This record gives sequence, C-alpha cells and structure tokens, in this order.
Amino acid sequence: MKGLVRFGVSLDRDLLGRVDRFIKAHRYVSRSKAIADILREKLVEEEWRGQTEVIGTITMVYDHHQRQLTGRLVCIQHHHGAAVLSSQHIHLDHNHCLEVVIVRGSPVKVRGLADRMKSCKGVKHLSLAMSSTGKRIA
Amino acid sequence: MKGLVRFGVSLDRDLLGRVDRFIKAHRYVSRSKAIADILREKLVEEEWRGQTEVIGTITMVYDHHQRQLTGRLVCIQHHHGAAVLSSQHIHLDHNHCLEVVIVRGSPVKVRGLADRMKSCKGVKHLSLAMSSTGKRIA
Amino acid sequence: MKGLVRFGVSLDRDLLGRVDRFIKAHRYVSRSKAIADILREKLVEEEWRGQTEVIGTITMVYDHHQRQLTGRLVCIQHHHGAAVLSSQHIHLDHNHCLEVVIVRGSPVKVRGLADRMKSCKGVKHLSLAMSSTGKRIA
Amino acid sequence: MKGLVRFGVSLDRDLLGRVDRFIKAHRYVSRSKAIADILREKLVEEEWRGQTEVIGTITMVYDHHQRQLTGRLVCIQHHHGAAVLSSQHIHLDHNHCLEVVIVRGSPVKVRGLADRMKSCKGVKHLSLAMSSTGKRIA
Repeated sequence: MKGLVRFGVSLDRDLLGRVDRFIKAHRYVSRSKAIADILREKLVEEEWRGQTEVIGTITMVYDHHQRQLTGRLVCIQHHHGAAVLSSQHIHLDHNHCLEVVIVRGSPVKVRGLADRMKSCKGVKHLSLAMSSTGKRIA
Repeated sequence: MKGLVRFGVSLDRDLLGRVDRFIKAHRYVSRSKAIADILREKLVEEEWRGQTEVIGTITMVYDHHQRQLTGRLVCIQHHHGAAVLSSQHIHLDHNHCLEVVIVRGSPVKVRGLADRMKSCKGVKHLSLAMSSTGKRIA
Repeated sequence: MKGLVRFGVSLDRDLLGRVDRFIKAHRYVSRSKAIADILREKLVEEEWRGQTEVIGTITMVYDHHQRQLTGRLVCIQHHHGAAVLSSQHIHLDHNHCLEVVIVRGSPVKVRGLADRMKSCKGVKHLSLAMSSTGKRIA
Repeated sequence: MKGLVRFGVSLDRDLLGRVDRFIKAHRYVSRSKAIADILREKLVEEEWRGQTEVIGTITMVYDHHQRQLTGRLVCIQHHHGAAVLSSQHIHLDHNHCLEVVIVRGSPVKVRGLADRMKSCKGVKHLSLAMSSTGKRIA
C-alpha cells in the first residue's frame, strides 16, 4: 500500500482564487486531486519524450470499401514491434469505420506504427492519444 | 461512388524536394494521399471548434482498488449527454487498469464527459483524442 | 502588495518523488513556483478559449523579395481590430526576414490577424504564441 | 532565383469542396499558397525534433517588482549557448511586463534557455513559439 504525503504550497491569494474557480469548472472536488492530475500530465508528456514503454491509443477513421484495407491493417498490427493490446471497431455509417487500437511500446515504435497505418490508402484520419502504463505516474 | 478531381499545385522546387523526403520518412507512397491527410487533419481541428457532432476517444488509466470507481465511471457514462459508443478495458498490472471509451457528441459534450471522468478519485490520467464521424472529411 | 497563502496538498509518496525529479530537471528551485507555473499555464489556456483580452506573439518568416509584402503587412497591422503593441525585425539571411509582432485583443481578433498575415504571398511560416495580459493569472 | 514546379494532386471532389471553404475562411486567395503553408508547418515541426538550428520566440509575463529579476534574465540570456538575437519589452500595467526574446540555436538549447528563464522567481508565464531560420522550408 502506498502512502500519502502532505506538503505545503505557497500561492498568491488571487491566483489561488482563480485556480479554485478553474478546478470547480472542471468538476474537481479536491484541490489535491486536481494538482496531482496536472502534475501527472506533465510526467506523461516526459515519458513520451523518452525511451521507456508507454501506452498509446490510435483512433482511425477509414473507408471500408477500400479493397484489402482491413486485411492490411491487421497485417501491419501483427508484424510491428509495438505490441497491439486490443482493438475495437465501430460502424460509423455506410462508408466509414472507426477503429481504436491500444498499443504498448516505446514512443518511437508506437509513433512508427501510427505512421504506418495512417499511410494506408483508405485511412482518412488518424489520431494518437498519449497515455501511460501507470508505472511512472505514481 | 465519389469522384476524384485532379488539380495543379505550384510549389518552389526546393520545398517540393523537402516535402517529398518528409512524405517518404512518414511512409507515404503517394503525394496526393499525404496532402489529403494533412488537409483532413485541418478539417477535423475545425470540427472540434464547432458544434456539429464529432467522435472522441477517451483513454483513462485508473487504480481499480479505488472503492466504487468502476461503478461510478459506468454511471457517468450512462447519464451523460454525449453518447458512449463502446469501450474496451485492459489490465495493465496489479494496480492499474486502462479504459478506452469511444464517444459521439458535440465537442462541448465530449469534453464535458472527459472532465467528469477525469475528476473521479482514482483516475490518474486521461487523454482525449479528437476524431471525426467521417461525414465532413470527404 | 499581494498576499501569499499557504495550503496543503496530499500526494502519493512515489508521485511526489517523480514530480520533484521533474521539477529539478526543469531547473526549478521551488516546488511552489513550479506548481504555480503549471496552474497559471492552465489559466492562460482557458483565457484563450474565452472572450477577454489576451496577448499574442506572432512570429513570421517571410521572403522580403516578395514585392510590396512589407507594406502590406504594415497595412494589415494598422487596420486590424486587435491592437499591435510593437514589433521587431531580424534579417535572417539574404532572402529571409523574421518579424515578431506583439498583439493585444480578444482571442478571436488575435487569431484573425494572424490568419490575415499568414495568407499574404511571401509569408512562409507563422506561429502564434499564447500569452496573457497578466491580469487574470494573479 | 528559385523555380516553381507544378504538380497534380488527386482529391475526392467533396473533400476539395470542404478544403476550399476552409481555405477561404482562413483568408487565403490561392490553394497553392495554402497547401505550401501547411506543408511548411509540418517541416518546421520536424526541424524542432532534430538538431539543426531553429528560431524560437520566447514570450514572458513577469512581475517587475521582483527584486533583481530583470538583471537575472539579462544575465541568463548572455551566458546561454543559444544566441539571443533581439528582445522587445512592453509595460503591460503597473505590475506586469512582457518580454519577447528571439533566440537562435538547436531545439534543445532553445528549450533549455526557455526553461531557465521560466524557473526564475517573478516570471509568471512563458510560452515558446517554434519558428524557423527559413533555410529548410524552401
């Protein structure tokens, strides 16, 4: 079981007032939770500049009428150095599919896999969300 | 079936050379595909500044030992204005879970749902990827 | 003279250790200063989503051989709703100039001015830095 | 004198329509200029991931009542490996100053200088705009 530490932070009174309004607007009930969150965000940004393992979520919109695209995307996922943990698929409309793939690996590998899939004919948009294995954010 | 249009673009010769090297480094085989992609990226950024429906992917890392968190996250998803399309779950390690939720709604609603979930005790990181229903990117 | 307030923050011990290493790597000597900074960053991001006055810095690279460009850029700056506070100019090389323009106005106006200048023939790159009048960050 | 090259791009008809509306909304008169701009943006992003020289613009808001801050900021600028090309100063209000510093150097050096200045007591906000020497974007 991990332990909590309590430490003091000094802030300008006006700044604290504004921060509290910000925190409330973002639905936080606790200042500590809000501050912990934004600190962890910074740590995850750092992780993505390094070489240790991260988690990335790749979201793709593609045209499933594109011949052999589905097979190609599966093939790329299988043969790439970054490990694909799971994926989910949504039928957006008659033409478009959405596929969300969770990947674990070094930032370079994860970005490489995203580039690979994005370059396939029929993939119309790809976004990569930077997440974490959780190991280095607490 | 949609039709392709071909149009001419004038570029400085040196710039085109650099662009082609960039395109190759990002594994594109076709200039048209690369240019279409970066144009669509701009369109999706615009969608997220507007009020029409978008697709967002929410990736969360959380501590599943946190009492009642799982139930709370499910409850929030059910009662929120943005429609949750599907979600997938990964066991990262003894303490950490990863949950990836695909959401459809206006950008304000999708961001509101993300804020809501992020503020829950036990959620350690949340990132939101901006994607599209595909309707306005071709 | 503004007053400082001291308040307590509870953080997981491991997280605090990682945060302290991050803070040190970014050359901070005080935890309070680092935390105040990242809180202010969030407030400035919010300012740029609202309608109150902000400060923006526009950095442009342009080709000064482009006929009448300099005159056009000056003209745009004079007739735009966002107030141009000052500008500085650097001769980068035989072809390229760098111009950095400080602007005050609503986010929409500042972005509009940036778009306007970016669209001029001869302007090769423009970046907009989001800053603040200082009033709402304490 | 550099030469222009004209090449063909194939795009879905609907996509081209949407792109043209986007381009018009951003006040472009020419498709080629708009496409050249977004291609150059990508190249500048790449530059900032490499080791060659870039231009950065550092915008700082600071409290000039902070004892010795001005002197310290000047001192840091003089002793840092990234070359400070010029700076401009704006009196925002009774308490706040804005300083905009143009820097040339490797991305690591420019970021290091920004971190250094940001960590100084009295500096309340710092943003770094990524620009270019112009050499590798045409």
